[in-house]
Amino acid sequence: MSDTNITLHSYYRSSCSFRVRIALNIKGLEYEYIPVHLINDGGQHKKPDYLLKNPLGQVPFFTHGDFTLTQSMPIIQYINSTWKKPPIFSESRTERAKQVQLAEIINSSIQPIQNLGVLQELTTKFNATKEQKNDWCRHWIENGFVALEKELEKTAGHYCFGDRISVADIFLVPQVYNAERFNVDLNRYPIIERINTKCLDQSAFIKAHPENQPDTPES
Amino acid sequence: MSDTNITLHSYYRSSCSFRVRIALNIKGLEYEYIPVHLINDGGQHKKPDYLLKNPLGQVPFFTHGDFTLTQSMPIIQYINSTWKKPPIFSESRTERAKQVQLAEIINSSIQPIQNLGVLQELTTKFNATKEQKNDWCRHWIENGFVALEKELEKTAGHYCFGDRISVADIFLVPQVYNAERFNVDLNRYPIIERINTKCLDQSAFIKAHPENQPDTPES
Repeated sequence: MSDTNITLHSYYRSSCSFRVRIALNIKGLEYEYIPVHLINDGGQHKKPDYLLKNPLGQVPFFTHGDFTLTQSMPIIQYINSTWKKPPIFSESRTERAKQVQLAEIINSSIQPIQNLGVLQELTTKFNATKEQKNDWCRHWIENGFVALEKELEKTAGHYCFGDRISVADIFLVPQVYNAERFNVDLNRYPIIERINTKCLDQSAFIKAHPENQPDTPES
Repeated sequence: MSDTNITLHSYYRSSCSFRVRIALNIKGLEYEYIPVHLINDGGQHKKPDYLLKNPLGQVPFFTHGDFTLTQSMPIIQYINSTWKKPPIFSESRTERAKQVQLAEIINSSIQPIQNLGVLQELTTKFNATKEQKNDWCRHWIENGFVALEKELEKTAGHYCFGDRISVADIFLVPQVYNAERFNVDLNRYPIIERINTKCLDQSAFIKAHPENQPDTPES
């Protein structure tokens, strides 16, 4: 257990875990990283002891002392309301709503449809090939990025919303990581690409990156 | 335009629109209902003039004066922070996080995977039959409801979180409506069923119901 009494059950390549890691790093919080491998052992997230923690069988799973929480959005909101500096949501209710809107395009209209569980179900139900699953992921990421790019034309500065890092950037960078895994052509989304590059220049994002986790494979 | 200067682009059967209608009703807010038919005309949400409003081509689309917003979660958060009584999020940061966690199980782990766009894509990509699509929806709703029921064992009173209506109930009731459309056996989720029945006894939920909208078909 770290001094902050925070633990995070995480998988290095999980984009939802990546979001929470970024938020913790932005706040400068140490935490104990507990790896949950989504492939090995038939998926450690499907084991009974893990399902007691998160009945949905997903990462991240967050604890702060005795308080437990699943789902990246409420975890990040909790982190922000518990450790206030620097803020990752605007104090203005209109600005905050727009920041959350940008994050929600990813949270509810891209990531859930291209996550591992859905891809496994496409194989089970439709005998989907690897190529078909990659096409599926690309379709939903591109569909969302077209919309997100248009919204960013209205809101972006150096970051998704103006010139300060917000929850929108915390959701964007892990989704771009997924996009790259599925060979989405980022040149078609110049604002997204620019913000992603800018964020990945910062230690909070670098330290949270899938390449730099305790459970990242060596090769 | 209503006296409150609020408009809602909505489709009677859209569960995400249903959420926002409930929130507006709980706050006692009048609003102008602007129907967007997701089937007729090849989908009115795919027309260029609508895509200018919401590039993702989804309902709901909310306006308050000149301020515009998409995505049900930030719309509901905005409504709650603009019209404070009665609150639909707890003031306590731990309670609020748990309420949002419950809503997020629906928002990011059930609804997106069983929405109309995904079903249409299953047909396009995998020649999915109507029966296969119904199976798909049932699978994801049941998967989510198993988890939600377990979480509710820990949090529920008369409602999802204790004895007051919160954002969790606002997300639950529209998802139960979808579950019924896809013949999910609600008897397996007694807490969900009980809360849904309790909510549907209240005018804010009745008035927001898909059966009672300006664009609800007569038959």
